[in-house]
Amino acid sequence: MRTTLRAVRAVSARRVGSLATAKPALRTAPFLASAAAGFRVEAATALLQSCGRRNYSAAVTKVVRPTAEMYPEIVRDARFGELTAADVEYFKSILPESAILQDDQDLSGYNIDSMRKYNGQSRLVLKPRTTEEVSKIMKHCGERKLAVVPQGGNTGLVGGSVPVFDEIVISLANMNKIRSFDEVSGIIVVDAGCILEATDSFLAEHGYIFPLDLGAKGSCHIGGNVATNAGGLRLLRYGSLHGSVLGVEAVMADGTVVNGLGKLRKDNTGYDIKQLFIGSEGTLGVITGVSVLCPKRSKVVNVAFFGLDSYEKVQQAFVKAKSELGEVLSAFEFMDRESQIQVARFSELRRPLDEQHNFYVLVETSGSNREHDDEKLQNYLEGLMESEIIDDGVVAQDETQLKNIWTWREGIPESLARTGGVYKYDVSIPLEDLYLMVEDCRARLIEKGYEIGTEASNIVSVVGYGHLGDGNLHLNVAVKSYDKAIEKVLEPWVYEWIQKRQGSISAEHGLGFAKRPFLKYSKDQSMINLMKQVKEIYDPNGIMNPYKYI
Amino acid sequence: MRTTLRAVRAVSARRVGSLATAKPALRTAPFLASAAAGFRVEAATALLQSCGRRNYSAAVTKVVRPTAEMYPEIVRDARFGELTAADVEYFKSILPESAILQDDQDLSGYNIDSMRKYNGQSRLVLKPRTTEEVSKIMKHCGERKLAVVPQGGNTGLVGGSVPVFDEIVISLANMNKIRSFDEVSGIIVVDAGCILEATDSFLAEHGYIFPLDLGAKGSCHIGGNVATNAGGLRLLRYGSLHGSVLGVEAVMADGTVVNGLGKLRKDNTGYDIKQLFIGSEGTLGVITGVSVLCPKRSKVVNVAFFGLDSYEKVQQAFVKAKSELGEVLSAFEFMDRESQIQVARFSELRRPLDEQHNFYVLVETSGSNREHDDEKLQNYLEGLMESEIIDDGVVAQDETQLKNIWTWREGIPESLARTGGVYKYDVSIPLEDLYLMVEDCRARLIEKGYEIGTEASNIVSVVGYGHLGDGNLHLNVAVKSYDKAIEKVLEPWVYEWIQKRQGSISAEHGLGFAKRPFLKYSKDQSMINLMKQVKEIYDPNGIMNPYKYI
Repeated sequence: MRTTLRAVRAVSARRVGSLATAKPALRTAPFLASAAAGFRVEAATALLQSCGRRNYSAAVTKVVRPTAEMYPEIVRDARFGELTAADVEYFKSILPESAILQDDQDLSGYNIDSMRKYNGQSRLVLKPRTTEEVSKIMKHCGERKLAVVPQGGNTGLVGGSVPVFDEIVISLANMNKIRSFDEVSGIIVVDAGCILEATDSFLAEHGYIFPLDLGAKGSCHIGGNVATNAGGLRLLRYGSLHGSVLGVEAVMADGTVVNGLGKLRKDNTGYDIKQLFIGSEGTLGVITGVSVLCPKRSKVVNVAFFGLDSYEKVQQAFVKAKSELGEVLSAFEFMDRESQIQVARFSELRRPLDEQHNFYVLVETSGSNREHDDEKLQNYLEGLMESEIIDDGVVAQDETQLKNIWTWREGIPESLARTGGVYKYDVSIPLEDLYLMVEDCRARLIEKGYEIGTEASNIVSVVGYGHLGDGNLHLNVAVKSYDKAIEKVLEPWVYEWIQKRQGSISAEHGLGFAKRPFLKYSKDQSMINLMKQVKEIYDPNGIMNPYKYI
Repeated sequence: MRTTLRAVRAVSARRVGSLATAKPALRTAPFLASAAAGFRVEAATALLQSCGRRNYSAAVTKVVRPTAEMYPEIVRDARFGELTAADVEYFKSILPESAILQDDQDLSGYNIDSMRKYNGQSRLVLKPRTTEEVSKIMKHCGERKLAVVPQGGNTGLVGGSVPVFDEIVISLANMNKIRSFDEVSGIIVVDAGCILEATDSFLAEHGYIFPLDLGAKGSCHIGGNVATNAGGLRLLRYGSLHGSVLGVEAVMADGTVVNGLGKLRKDNTGYDIKQLFIGSEGTLGVITGVSVLCPKRSKVVNVAFFGLDSYEKVQQAFVKAKSELGEVLSAFEFMDRESQIQVARFSELRRPLDEQHNFYVLVETSGSNREHDDEKLQNYLEGLMESEIIDDGVVAQDETQLKNIWTWREGIPESLARTGGVYKYDVSIPLEDLYLMVEDCRARLIEKGYEIGTEASNIVSVVGYGHLGDGNLHLNVAVKSYDKAIEKVLEPWVYEWIQKRQGSISAEHGLGFAKRPFLKYSKDQSMINLMKQVKEIYDPNGIMNPYKYI
């Protein structure tokens, strides 16, 4: 027994050793920093999504057609009031001048979404500083039946955070204070407008971590994250926001402030109403404050990146990771061959692995003991190599390499955005069928007469990648230009395919404007009816983020 | 540095070694098994709570006065229909004879709660086998406005699972099949009537664990656990059911079956309605099926038990546990001196530690690597001893010792139940003030002229213990016999005390019948209004588990 184990280690150590030579090829500059200068296609819209509003506005040139024009079947709700000078006067009486935006130039950043796909026609942005101000605004809007769109960092991917017609935008950007933090329990209470990255940096100073991480962290708001029920990269380890958000403070459509800002890990006193706000995308009320249970920040983080030749082996590697990495496993991301070709094509980064494989996996561990974590990862990788589940791999040797591997992974959507357009499907599918969705999608396009990836073809690539540990696939069909005919081949076919396997048509992006028509593919009518009943009682005039969600 | 570390280890190893001599004193027989014969007080009601209905019924002799008689201020809702022979005939047409109980003897186990505090007057128990049968029952009850009480294992602690007047009991006991289990994702789908322990045993065979554990596991149902949002012993590690329950199937008051039995870790398609059922205590619908994300079962479990001289040191030990045990920490239970005196007095078990301390802590780790986990725990305990945070301690050396230490901890409520009566407060309080509640409670009783623990005094003991890792205190005031005057000294004082510190009047037991009047101490009116609106739309005639909750 012992002899065998030693033998395994000896062999593997050598193999891992030989793999380690690939590591210096990883560039030390982070992807985002190098990308602005180095990407081969000039438009860098999607990239800038995570670089804050200032950079974002400066880079924007492309005209986005008004949503109302693009979707003539959507009609302005006649029940809603029209904004008058008297309304603006009222808002001036409760807010400072600087918190009221009416200029076209100021408004565009709030009307256009981060993907530059949707363009609303709002004439007014309000930027309250306190919950009380939000309450006054909503009381007035409720009485006047003025429709509103609550807006955080405006980084959403389904057009949920921008107006469609003349809805008033309520930006939470001026509500960005950390209200309290308890060093013993790890419970933080923040204004909704706190930026995710800034909050996480604050927590890092105290040895804690925010239980959510995503690409847009530099500009997204925690209130927006909660409203979207954002998933991201740490969900595998820290669970969903339904578990970690302890309390929500919100202002309802009539201005009522609902104080649900509990700071208790356990509280079984009545229906857990705050859960409805998590993932409600601004359709029930304006989230103004959030309390979150934050875990201790891990002292040690390791990242490995390896190649495999089949999806079956990816699943095997995942099962072994759950068993052997156990409590230190913090991410298990998979990517297909096609995704790597696109990142290599559109970025300056060198591939983490020189040779090509059919699939790639990024495994991350986070733990409290360097020696233990290293040993667990080493044993895991050795086991995978011994049983020939993986073909090749690298382990990050320092913080820079670790970041670069993550940047490579995060480079997939950013690279694809450079092809011209991307049909994005963010879906949940039972693990065994997860990659079949990508293969079936390719087959369908070919069957319908489309070529993929040829010089003449409009379809550049059909790519699959995602958070395998969460059963979350990102199916991306990258095209040179959007084409209604391709869209018709894909939709509702994709949704029907998912429905058959009881998957979700939106794993983490939400419904917003884009996915609203397809809700029925994931939820049956009895459930949709319960949702509609909630919407009707909490927002009887439908003024909260209309034309979206449900 | 290295020398110092070695020195620490040498010293601690000796001390841990000397402590280890205390271990043989731990009896090998589990507490529950030995208790039936060995407890010094004969009535073993509370104990039998976790031994299944058969034992329970056989042991019952004490007469429980009807709830309606005890609480004359509660009046039967005149809107409800009265059960007729025609109703019973209808139920006979859809259910087999054996699924319809009408005999007094059969009914009593469903009318009386597990604490033998409440006694309903139901004349009919129905035990459907399928969701469709539940739907037919509810459709009929909805049309006839017949009130119902959904009932799982009837192990609740707030009188929530038994009728008050003539409500029909719908027992889920005959719905006890595991519908599916996915070995890759760890997602299990069960009928609501599956018993927690049986389900966990099934999962153990597949290397997984149910993310919930509690004393009543031998008879409680998973549907009931979800309806109560049960907390228990694993919450610190695996989080609340709001995070781990992925889907709920429920039958509404009008018989509509709501299929929300998702098996996806991520699904952002609309309001997360299932969250409302988690902790709804049967007031919104009958939960008939549940899908749950189960973690991998840890290969290694360690338990340590130690004594400390102040509550400040308990908190320090907790902060260090979070930091040093990190990802393997799975329980952190604290107990005060008084609690240990009571267990020692009423049980045959020997104390885990011979000497008395002011506080005691049970720490559990669960991980995937024996060597790593042992080392982490060893380092942690050495650090606590070196910095003089703990005075004395033992580490379980085998499965039996581990179980015995847990049994000792679980013996607290069981021992207290033998004094005659217990005023139980299951509360959440910010950590720093948690134990102050117990001290203030003692002071108040003394101030009001009561003696505690003397021969003549009715008050036997005021005890504090609980899930410190979750901020959850169990304050128990044990008395020889219930006394309205003592109750008046305690209530609403306890609730007011909690309200001042923004705590919860019910951390994990729920509201049921017992805590309904006190909801306002934990939730403000705006939140209660939102709850009431939900209740009104989903159950407009109020037939679902009336007179309770909200």
